[in-house]
Amino acid sequence: MAEPFHCDFSGRLFMGHLGNHLLNAADFHSSARGFGMKYLMGIQRSWVLSRLAIEMDEMPEQYTHFTVETWVENAMRYFTSRNFRIIGEDTEDKEDTEDLESSSSSPSSASSSSSPKVYGYGRSIWAMIDTVTRQPTDIFSIDNGAINDWIVADKECPIAKGGRVRMGSEAELVHTIDTYYNDVDINGHINSVKYIEHVLDLWPIDWYREHWLKRFEIAYVAEAHGGDQLSFYREPAADGSFNVRIVKTGDIEVARAAVTFMSRG
Amino acid sequence: MAEPFHCDFSGRLFMGHLGNHLLNAADFHSSARGFGMKYLMGIQRSWVLSRLAIEMDEMPEQYTHFTVETWVENAMRYFTSRNFRIIGEDTEDKEDTEDLESSSSSPSSASSSSSPKVYGYGRSIWAMIDTVTRQPTDIFSIDNGAINDWIVADKECPIAKGGRVRMGSEAELVHTIDTYYNDVDINGHINSVKYIEHVLDLWPIDWYREHWLKRFEIAYVAEAHGGDQLSFYREPAADGSFNVRIVKTGDIEVARAAVTFMSRG
Repeated sequence: MAEPFHCDFSGRLFMGHLGNHLLNAADFHSSARGFGMKYLMGIQRSWVLSRLAIEMDEMPEQYTHFTVETWVENAMRYFTSRNFRIIGEDTEDKEDTEDLESSSSSPSSASSSSSPKVYGYGRSIWAMIDTVTRQPTDIFSIDNGAINDWIVADKECPIAKGGRVRMGSEAELVHTIDTYYNDVDINGHINSVKYIEHVLDLWPIDWYREHWLKRFEIAYVAEAHGGDQLSFYREPAADGSFNVRIVKTGDIEVARAAVTFMSRG
Repeated sequence: MAEPFHCDFSGRLFMGHLGNHLLNAADFHSSARGFGMKYLMGIQRSWVLSRLAIEMDEMPEQYTHFTVETWVENAMRYFTSRNFRIIGEDTEDKEDTEDLESSSSSPSSASSSSSPKVYGYGRSIWAMIDTVTRQPTDIFSIDNGAINDWIVADKECPIAKGGRVRMGSEAELVHTIDTYYNDVDINGHINSVKYIEHVLDLWPIDWYREHWLKRFEIAYVAEAHGGDQLSFYREPAADGSFNVRIVKTGDIEVARAAVTFMSRG
């Protein structure tokens, strides 16, 4: 559900919280197939998110129930691609408080025969690393390449793959921020979701009154740690979107993002 | 569930995310009884959180399932007090990945006959306001004082009520931060949960390696809006805890918090 405190001033789910739901879906899906973070921890392996792209036709409104589907599109030795589809339930009664209550307190009982509403799609690329050496490791070495059994090659994900975000020399330094306790995840690194939030905070709230976020794309280059300062450089791209480069203390690039807005109304 | 990306570097749920679960529990509980935010919106009323105190014996570990219970302790004309208890499921198999999977994909099937593990408790005070005049309104005017039917006076909540946080003149200015898009909730105000995060970010990560958070208490005094600068003043209290005063642009106090840490190990 799009929880009320996870929604922005316009009553729509924050992209950062949607990103968190996608990462959870990836973890639950891989855990159920013997590739989860928790299992990998025990054998000194971990999934590392390399790229994430999310493109939406619409963001779920507060109190709306939605489902994140995920599947493995492809696997190579050092990278695997995992896609997402964000779909709704039948929402024709969504203005009805009584209906909200019953769907909060019990699983959905009415199964609609029509196609679900599609909010949007996501694409992600993951590497597997050795948690001691921090080096990439062979994904196929886990359970004799069992990941190949889970590939779904024919499910459509009709959004562009993330490409290399090209930055010119004219990018403007918008913010430099300190990172703190709440930015750091269980690995001691800056939380992937926090980057999404920090990038979207580069635009003032008035900007969001006139625009909505169509697509967010990020490529993680290096890890940052709690206490690092992060600087955000932004420049407009030829197609009307914005490119953002994030560097940490010492001018080391940690991530690049591309953000596409649409005018409201 | 304590989602992995909602846990800190030590693998325990962030207090801010726990606070969010408590606020959701309050909303779901009041919605099911005809007092929810969504219903109140339609009649120009809204609940406003005035005080929140959370005191923990232990924070849930990542992937742990827990339940938030909530009940109305008392109701007066302009304020109501609502308490919380955070309890676990039977956790004896929690190291077992197979068990984790089955409990993720289906509701808990085994009901333990023993008492649940208690992680901690919460207390909150709420006012009801008119969303147009922003003035307090009579809680008993809703459905002929029906809230009185929901009072549970005899359920124990064995943590101290929040008191007035006294600040001396020696408080140190620790941070001044800008607020952005992601800080703002559906009412256009700085999100209650974000205050929790910003206060806890006053201590460096190394502090959290040596200490864990026992109790967090906050009293909301005035509303801040996106774009406001927030300054955080901190001073040690006589009992070993810390008091924090938050002021917005114009030196207007918006909240006071009290934070109690315990040494680890």
